[in-house]
Amino acid sequence: MDLDLRAPVGELTRCLVDVPSVSGDEAALADAVQAALGRIGGLRVERDGDAVVARTSLGLPSRIVLAGHLDTVPIADNLPSRVEGGRLYGCGTSDMKAGVAIALRLAATLPLTEPGALRHDITWICYDHEEVEAARNGLRRLAAQHRDWLDGDLAILMEPTSGEVEAGCQGTLRVIVRLGGRRAHSARSWLGDNAIHKAGALLQRLAAYEARSVTLDGCTYREGLSAVRVDGGVAGNVIPDACAVTVNFRFAPDRTPQAAVEHVREVLAGYECEVTDLSGGAPPGLAAAPAAAFVAATGRTPVAKYGWTDVARFAELGIPALNYGPGDPNLAHTREEYVELAAIDEGERLLRGYLTGALTA
Amino acid sequence: MDLDLRAPVGELTRCLVDVPSVSGDEAALADAVQAALGRIGGLRVERDGDAVVARTSLGLPSRIVLAGHLDTVPIADNLPSRVEGGRLYGCGTSDMKAGVAIALRLAATLPLTEPGALRHDITWICYDHEEVEAARNGLRRLAAQHRDWLDGDLAILMEPTSGEVEAGCQGTLRVIVRLGGRRAHSARSWLGDNAIHKAGALLQRLAAYEARSVTLDGCTYREGLSAVRVDGGVAGNVIPDACAVTVNFRFAPDRTPQAAVEHVREVLAGYECEVTDLSGGAPPGLAAAPAAAFVAATGRTPVAKYGWTDVARFAELGIPALNYGPGDPNLAHTREEYVELAAIDEGERLLRGYLTGALTA
Repeated sequence: MDLDLRAPVGELTRCLVDVPSVSGDEAALADAVQAALGRIGGLRVERDGDAVVARTSLGLPSRIVLAGHLDTVPIADNLPSRVEGGRLYGCGTSDMKAGVAIALRLAATLPLTEPGALRHDITWICYDHEEVEAARNGLRRLAAQHRDWLDGDLAILMEPTSGEVEAGCQGTLRVIVRLGGRRAHSARSWLGDNAIHKAGALLQRLAAYEARSVTLDGCTYREGLSAVRVDGGVAGNVIPDACAVTVNFRFAPDRTPQAAVEHVREVLAGYECEVTDLSGGAPPGLAAAPAAAFVAATGRTPVAKYGWTDVARFAELGIPALNYGPGDPNLAHTREEYVELAAIDEGERLLRGYLTGALTA
Repeated sequence: MDLDLRAPVGELTRCLVDVPSVSGDEAALADAVQAALGRIGGLRVERDGDAVVARTSLGLPSRIVLAGHLDTVPIADNLPSRVEGGRLYGCGTSDMKAGVAIALRLAATLPLTEPGALRHDITWICYDHEEVEAARNGLRRLAAQHRDWLDGDLAILMEPTSGEVEAGCQGTLRVIVRLGGRRAHSARSWLGDNAIHKAGALLQRLAAYEARSVTLDGCTYREGLSAVRVDGGVAGNVIPDACAVTVNFRFAPDRTPQAAVEHVREVLAGYECEVTDLSGGAPPGLAAAPAAAFVAATGRTPVAKYGWTDVARFAELGIPALNYGPGDPNLAHTREEYVELAAIDEGERLLRGYLTGALTA
């Protein structure tokens, strides 16, 4: 399949969306992206698994990374895409092929080989397996195996933000609290020890928890501690000897992962907590010059990112990173997912201006 | 598979236990029981689903029903059975294959065709689906479709009673309390309304409930109100909009089923309760002559039955019924379930004496 990266960005988005690429099934799209980038002069194109990385080598004093994942959540009867009322509907439109289309069109239309035309060297990263468990994440794999491909002074992750600059991200921690007891026939309940009843006090504690907010670089990060699963019971006539509550803590990036674990253990004192999932947050990192310049170019007031994103992986490598994309994050993973075509145009215009220096504060 | 019903009763129990028969999976055991009973002269054997009924037709003035269920609760790493220190361990040993083994061995060893050898005609009922919701209960099905198969002047249900005569039974009521809420991404938990958190106050109320005791015909019935299942959660990153708690109320037979429902609605005021399962209890019913004669033959003082049992179905049909079996009811549904081999022998001896008239008060 041939991708025309010079097509209008809305059309290009539609082409990308109509190549299904549910996590684990990104090969066809990655092949097409690799082939299309390979036809552009001035780019060094690399491939690892179903991740494609392309870089200029102009020797400019700074490098901007434009990153986006190629995969989508499972299709929900919402492919092929359709255009209606200025919107492109379909799986992956908002999250995040519109952002990927902007980045790819810039690769094909910026004057990459014209001396003085660009303010920064540029790296394009299109990766796989973002919508599944962290262990399979393509950006994580690139960081581990090709650290140098990710180098840069600012990474712009084109996740849906409705055109806002969403800085840094929260961390996320999941623990399972397992409550024990003693089985008995429910007709002789006094002989047992009901594990489900013990969850009452735990859930009351979670319900009463007052989550903290913290402001960093002008961005307010609001935390949350929530039960996301509860499961207990043996049979309808048995006093249960086990009940498990899964708790998700979304924490502000001023806490280290370890501090987040300690906080949850403190809140849930008296209960055994098994950590099942832990990813640190990313500080806003807006002080760094390239980030400040990007924010100025957008003319927007940056806000905190609610939700863990791969900006945390860049932050961990010491690369300032922010989220910026045309999609509406609230539509991500819904059947009704869409992206405003005008928002994609606007995103392309803004990024082009920033990269060429035509747009400054 | 061939069952030797003439084997010593402990061995026969072990054979029955080692044929797994979790509710819904009784066919293999029912087939074996049907085939074995079919080889005995003087018995008319019937089959309905996985229930097997066998009857003598000696024209005697009274008929005793020996009834037991073939199914067990889910296996808890406790099969195959093992013998240790005079005990047979394993799923279904106490509840209630030991009782079934006594009844079946009597079928094979009593002189069913010898004139004058028996005091009563006898009916054997081995049925399915006792350990699950009432709608699937095999005895209920038989009562609805083959009422005449159940006829008798006294039904002895061989549920575990440690060799005691356990009179009547508690009623049982199950309700589901469904808690609602509003979904949101767990990174923006304040936009949602956590249904699992709401279960906290409900479970606390159940944990604090003080159960009543009541004495009828000298038998004390103790009640209990217990959560037996809790289930909530959408995904690890979603504030859940639904959580369901199943509550089981075991009530004394002085409450009607309707009064039991009203009591639970009162205790759980403020929550919507959906009744999923309701079975009335059975009064002790020790006044009827065949019951009094059986009690006298055992030489024991009858006590209240803790647990709803199918004696209530016989009581509903106007057939006096009591529980009598060799297993310890406190071990029913536990991982450590066992039965004393000596208690099975004693149960067989006592019933044989009662049925042949060798044992009287």
